[in-house]
Amino acid sequence: MVPVLHGYWRSGTSYRTRIGLELKGLAYEQAPVDLRTGAQRSEAFLRLNPQGLAPALEIDGLVLTQSMAILEYLDEAYPEPPLLPPGAAARAQVRAMADVVACGIPPLNNLRLLKAIKELGVQDQAGQNAWAGRWINAGFEALERLIGQHGSGWCWGEAPTIADCCLIPQVYSARRFEVDLEPYPLIRAIDLRAAAHPAFQAAHPDRQPDADQ
Amino acid sequence: MVPVLHGYWRSGTSYRTRIGLELKGLAYEQAPVDLRTGAQRSEAFLRLNPQGLAPALEIDGLVLTQSMAILEYLDEAYPEPPLLPPGAAARAQVRAMADVVACGIPPLNNLRLLKAIKELGVQDQAGQNAWAGRWINAGFEALERLIGQHGSGWCWGEAPTIADCCLIPQVYSARRFEVDLEPYPLIRAIDLRAAAHPAFQAAHPDRQPDADQ
Repeated sequence: MVPVLHGYWRSGTSYRTRIGLELKGLAYEQAPVDLRTGAQRSEAFLRLNPQGLAPALEIDGLVLTQSMAILEYLDEAYPEPPLLPPGAAARAQVRAMADVVACGIPPLNNLRLLKAIKELGVQDQAGQNAWAGRWINAGFEALERLIGQHGSGWCWGEAPTIADCCLIPQVYSARRFEVDLEPYPLIRAIDLRAAAHPAFQAAHPDRQPDADQ
Repeated sequence: MVPVLHGYWRSGTSYRTRIGLELKGLAYEQAPVDLRTGAQRSEAFLRLNPQGLAPALEIDGLVLTQSMAILEYLDEAYPEPPLLPPGAAARAQVRAMADVVACGIPPLNNLRLLKAIKELGVQDQAGQNAWAGRWINAGFEALERLIGQHGSGWCWGEAPTIADCCLIPQVYSARRFEVDLEPYPLIRAIDLRAAAHPAFQAAHPDRQPDADQ
């Protein structure tokens, strides 16, 4: 059975999962979950994933959740091309770069959090952009430095890794929050390279079946 | 050279790193970084880790950052006893449980965030507890269900994994924020078991050299 990705076109965690699937060359179907209408808490979706969290990936008879765990699964179950380099030290560097994004940025900017800070009085778009931009800049400053140390075309070395799976959706999100990307030339160079790469192109939010027209 | 952990006694990410080191039976020294006084931005620490983030682990001639990447490194470089089970499916389940905590809770409750929501007007302890409790409860509801599916003494199976490395510090944090743990009997049972386990005992914040007296 072909894998089925339950995700949302504009969510960064769904986007990074799509990049992983595309880099592995895996054919998959999509079952959109509209986070804006709370479809992740619908009875149908909760039957699949009682946690009510997207993305969820049906693959190999399993239902996998949490995008970083899904990317690691894809790399273990479908080793070619690798999303992590060989060697424990290099893998630790790549995972640390991925987690600068995964643990440091989207948890603070996602729909759930933006709603919560709205309740605290941050109502307008400018305020929400400033909130999001603060965490994006903190993460991007760290990443720009790490890419300078380890990158050679991509975040780490000469091929895309899970760090790039995380970075590219975060750049997309940064643009939505009107973050100035001028201070991050290395991040912008990777973003340009990804824009020309078939796997990243196919995973882009605008190309998804549930994208706003 | 013996590994050196640069961390803070009460930080959940330092605590989970200590549990990993203790479970692996690795001797290590500690170099405390007092997050309350901003020591993570001191010149001395920035020379070690220009990102200004604790924990950082000096090990095997490397400086590793990001606690989840460090735990994965420990498991790859020091395979016994394993912190992840064999098999891609089981590993994905454990990593997903770990990430329910790692990506879902501390990023929203750490010192950095508590300062930020203070600026938004959440000044008093009750308000901060309510904010933290909201995300802790969301994560613990998911985890309680997942432990019911996969646990057998620990979060997943019969031995501690990276999921337990993440859970136990989160329970400690939940108590500080006065979260009611009554609805989570499976989590409480694992917490009790950890309290009797030498590795978890040695990693406890109260046992660290920089702990408040």
